[in-house]
Amino acid sequence: MDTLEKAPPVKRDRPWLIRTYSGHSSARASNALYRTNLARGQTGLSVAFDLPTQTGYDADHQLARGEVGKVGVPICSIEDMEALFEGIPLEQMNTSMTINATAPWLLSLYIAVAEKQGADISALQGTVQNDIIKEYLSRGTYIFPPQPSVKLATDVITYTVRNIPKWNPTNICSYHLQEAGATPVQEMAYALSTAVTILDSIRDSGEIAAEDFADVVGRISFFVNAGIRFVEECCKMRGFVEMWDRIAEQRYGVTDAKLRRFRYGVQVNSLGLTESQAENNIQRIVLEMLGVVLSKTARARAIQLPAWNEALGLPRPWDQQWSLRIQQVMALETDLLEYGDLLDGSPVIAAKVKALCEGAEAEMARVAEHGGMVRAIESGYVKRELVASQTARMRAIESGELKIVGVNCYTDSADSPLTSASDGGIMKVDPAAEREQIERLTAFRARRDPEAVKQALEALTAAARSGANVMPASIACAHAGVTTGEWAGALRAIFGEYRAPTGIDGVVATRSDSARIQALRERTRNTGEQLGRPLRLLVGKPGLDGHSNGAEQVAVKARDAGFEVVYEGIRLTPHQLATAALEEGVHLIGLSVLSGSHAELVTEIRKELDELGLSRVPVIIGGIIPEADAVALKAAGIAAVYTPKDVDLNRIMSELVDIIRNANGLDPYEAAA
Amino acid sequence: MDTLEKAPPVKRDRPWLIRTYSGHSSARASNALYRTNLARGQTGLSVAFDLPTQTGYDADHQLARGEVGKVGVPICSIEDMEALFEGIPLEQMNTSMTINATAPWLLSLYIAVAEKQGADISALQGTVQNDIIKEYLSRGTYIFPPQPSVKLATDVITYTVRNIPKWNPTNICSYHLQEAGATPVQEMAYALSTAVTILDSIRDSGEIAAEDFADVVGRISFFVNAGIRFVEECCKMRGFVEMWDRIAEQRYGVTDAKLRRFRYGVQVNSLGLTESQAENNIQRIVLEMLGVVLSKTARARAIQLPAWNEALGLPRPWDQQWSLRIQQVMALETDLLEYGDLLDGSPVIAAKVKALCEGAEAEMARVAEHGGMVRAIESGYVKRELVASQTARMRAIESGELKIVGVNCYTDSADSPLTSASDGGIMKVDPAAEREQIERLTAFRARRDPEAVKQALEALTAAARSGANVMPASIACAHAGVTTGEWAGALRAIFGEYRAPTGIDGVVATRSDSARIQALRERTRNTGEQLGRPLRLLVGKPGLDGHSNGAEQVAVKARDAGFEVVYEGIRLTPHQLATAALEEGVHLIGLSVLSGSHAELVTEIRKELDELGLSRVPVIIGGIIPEADAVALKAAGIAAVYTPKDVDLNRIMSELVDIIRNANGLDPYEAAA
Repeated sequence: MDTLEKAPPVKRDRPWLIRTYSGHSSARASNALYRTNLARGQTGLSVAFDLPTQTGYDADHQLARGEVGKVGVPICSIEDMEALFEGIPLEQMNTSMTINATAPWLLSLYIAVAEKQGADISALQGTVQNDIIKEYLSRGTYIFPPQPSVKLATDVITYTVRNIPKWNPTNICSYHLQEAGATPVQEMAYALSTAVTILDSIRDSGEIAAEDFADVVGRISFFVNAGIRFVEECCKMRGFVEMWDRIAEQRYGVTDAKLRRFRYGVQVNSLGLTESQAENNIQRIVLEMLGVVLSKTARARAIQLPAWNEALGLPRPWDQQWSLRIQQVMALETDLLEYGDLLDGSPVIAAKVKALCEGAEAEMARVAEHGGMVRAIESGYVKRELVASQTARMRAIESGELKIVGVNCYTDSADSPLTSASDGGIMKVDPAAEREQIERLTAFRARRDPEAVKQALEALTAAARSGANVMPASIACAHAGVTTGEWAGALRAIFGEYRAPTGIDGVVATRSDSARIQALRERTRNTGEQLGRPLRLLVGKPGLDGHSNGAEQVAVKARDAGFEVVYEGIRLTPHQLATAALEEGVHLIGLSVLSGSHAELVTEIRKELDELGLSRVPVIIGGIIPEADAVALKAAGIAAVYTPKDVDLNRIMSELVDIIRNANGLDPYEAAA
Repeated sequence: MDTLEKAPPVKRDRPWLIRTYSGHSSARASNALYRTNLARGQTGLSVAFDLPTQTGYDADHQLARGEVGKVGVPICSIEDMEALFEGIPLEQMNTSMTINATAPWLLSLYIAVAEKQGADISALQGTVQNDIIKEYLSRGTYIFPPQPSVKLATDVITYTVRNIPKWNPTNICSYHLQEAGATPVQEMAYALSTAVTILDSIRDSGEIAAEDFADVVGRISFFVNAGIRFVEECCKMRGFVEMWDRIAEQRYGVTDAKLRRFRYGVQVNSLGLTESQAENNIQRIVLEMLGVVLSKTARARAIQLPAWNEALGLPRPWDQQWSLRIQQVMALETDLLEYGDLLDGSPVIAAKVKALCEGAEAEMARVAEHGGMVRAIESGYVKRELVASQTARMRAIESGELKIVGVNCYTDSADSPLTSASDGGIMKVDPAAEREQIERLTAFRARRDPEAVKQALEALTAAARSGANVMPASIACAHAGVTTGEWAGALRAIFGEYRAPTGIDGVVATRSDSARIQALRERTRNTGEQLGRPLRLLVGKPGLDGHSNGAEQVAVKARDAGFEVVYEGIRLTPHQLATAALEEGVHLIGLSVLSGSHAELVTEIRKELDELGLSRVPVIIGGIIPEADAVALKAAGIAAVYTPKDVDLNRIMSELVDIIRNANGLDPYEAAA
């Protein structure tokens, strides 16, 4: 016998879209990276934008300082967008853009570039994330208050349903909810509640005729997270499929089963990736991917994987290639795509799916009681729930109940040749990137027709004020040479800006009355008495980075440890933070920066503190900070640097007390006790 | 709600035994490695022995030259075995030993060391592979002919069933069958046929009382392979479970279901690991592991994973740690162990299992028609089937039908920091290891009581001649200071040595009448005509390495390409190969060495060739040869060096013709055509 010789050619399912979330430094550098990635087998693009672009600032805005080109590509105008896709025919590409508050604008730039390329706009395929609601809960790149933000999101949806029918105009995104600590049940409940809120809003607006509404439902897609607990994650995806089908049918009366399909993309979990023994992230990423491919009936449509060194810094081309290869090995070398659904019929799986769906339905009901997702966010309810989950997770890691190899068990390790390389195993963004982007922007502004810009912005303002769809006016702005900051500025003038609940107030500090935390409280109290008043900590997130989980966890823990905590949320300027430190009379400033712009921001904050006479207030910082940068920060007077490998919050709190004692001339604690 | 807070502690299954197949250089160096591995979380040991130990030669034997300490630890006597387990109490350890022809001897040494440690022998836990049958098909570390070999294997089984009831005395091993190209159906059929052959032999020997025979069946365990097609592999494991249960019940009347359980260990696939873009082997290893853990009812009892760089050379401690961490992340971080069987109830899985079982039953019937596994091997049937499967696999890779990322698709790559390190990303065995081992052996021989050795060997000889169980006499030999070479030598004198069928004769060269192969045949024929007779190739495997798949595939392909091929099988001395080259009048010698001893063996063969006046016969070599070694070999006059990344056999054949033309002063082919 010879099975291989005699077997008929096997029919395989087409793989999901294979992408890598990428972009950095400049449009030109990112374009080169995209072309390499496509040549190496990517089947779609996934654009990462830098924080100024995401939050509607031009590269030369004060808040953009240090952030340009860091976590993604800077796009200030149609010129940048053209450079980004040079040599890549958009009519044939499938492009995903992770963009939210400025989604109407970036999509307009994309459409304008496609028009200049001569593409048939109605044939464009791709996705804009355009899920503003989760930005208030995690990630934090919102600009306007929730109501006008939802209006802008629905503008994108109604525009594309009419004009770019194959486009995914919103990718309801539970990804960042899991990063913020959401359990699978919470992820399901909040994502589906968000979708319902958006669809209700469109339905109630009357913009779409009743007979066309099923098409709108059919264009809603999702963007989920997949963590290391891959069996549960796979059941979560099957649960999503079941629940969305039911909601589309029962709530929106969609009769065509195809339009009720739960279509989703994935970026697998970054929260569980470790800085210690970072090579182990490869096996984590493989297993995380499994959760979204294993079950055919609930398989992802598009997947992007993080790089193994994400907790260390920015990935190099080789690191991104490796993540691409993980997808290719799964799709091309394994036999996964040769079968029907492997889990249909399994009672173990069915029971788990049922439990998840029941939990999610109950939580959706609670959100509905609050009046839907927008109200539940404005009231702080959802954020509080997420912070509580994240706190529970951190405690389970501290106690060892939740095991993370290399972090709270099996920490002994041989030296890694991966991280001992001269580059530290990561990429450095060209330090000239920000200056060069500003130069390009300045030259572009000088070249354009100022009258055309003025008229386009006036038309945009008129549309926004009138409640008309902003997309046509935005596309006109793109062609006229309007910049990202100008587009967002015009809408800021109408809608105003927003500050979201931080979620740290409602978290009850149960289950942490260990001897260790009691001793810690005693130290905090004693030290406060010696200094004449309770210890005060300012937790600050300078710059544009909205990833606030770390800051929130430190704030919750510090309060539990007896500190008075001042935390005003994300996106404060160095000047605002220094002023708050003065007005609140804090003993210590703890900064959190995950965007890689720590060096620039710390320098500015120290300068502001000096000017206010607060030179002696110690500053610590937490974030994704490469070892070499940590050394430089300490040399520049930063009292302590914490990175993702520091998961023992009790130890951190204890060190904060020591730092305050030291800064105030008190003896080390042992002597004082 | 807060799922994490309220959830009761989850009950998890105990993980499988976590091992790493390791050992190198010396007993002392390997002992240090074992202690480190145990400290880093291994829960059992898996001993790799070097080839002299596996084939019954002392370190100072001529055939051992260059092989001592290369692919495993050298064990010449009880002194080495004591050093190997120094500080590791054997009564508490679970040790797997990959040992076959010399299994009775290595187990005797292990027992003797345990006795010296004061252990209760009946409490020992572990495994000896002791599956001699597959050695004739793949791997090739057999010594004696099949019949006495099977008798020695059953001696181990009957001895341990009586004296070490928790020991696994045979690990019927389909691992190497898959490495040799076996399809899942073949792997199942030949492994189960082997088990049946062994059990029939024990039953028919009358050594075990009928009422105790179920206990013997219950002690049979298996050692399987798991490749990248993880769904099929998982189904294979479920099929094994079903079929073994049925065989134990129906053929051997075992009524206790517990004694019918298919218990197995795994080393995942090495065949599919690539030298190109070797980092991708990590994701392959993770997915391969999945096949044997995903289904709870068919889950492995013990797992060892290869290192990512196995196709490059020997793994360093960090590389082995990484493979250990893969197991730990799967066992400790994922939720896999929190559920019942995920695949029970799945009709897709059930259909695939059924198809595999039906195929395996049909192939088992063919083996039975040949008179069982021993006869089917002696007749060459099984080996021919395996070579045919491997040939089909190689052709599918060449044609691109079977995709291997980085090998036959997506070959463009960024430079890897993993392999560009100064050590080339691999470990070098201390070149002094062989000399030092010989010194230790010589000193040990001088120290022992020669009379005690003589008596112990006489008792062993008497037992073997009489058909008594050799284990008691072997344990006495161990205590008396007998060496590995002496133990095997005594039995060689009684049983003789064996040379197995090579399997290359019956493989029909269908499906390769491409234009490319026809052009190749034309070149071979033309060149032969110019040289006055058909081109002759000697394929040789010098040294003790019995991994003959590569040599077999080259031999099959060369015959297909028009060469006359001389291939005498494995384990020939340099002198034997040089003599064969002279007698057969070959135009080219192709060597295959996978044990890492290429440098020593090539030097010796060139010397032998020079002495026979064959200096002008070109020599090529294939094997696991690090880049630096390849450069040195070419500098030493080797015409070409091939490694696992060279999968295009047509290209290799074409180059062989060029090498012959060049060595004989003919113009390059283009000019001659």
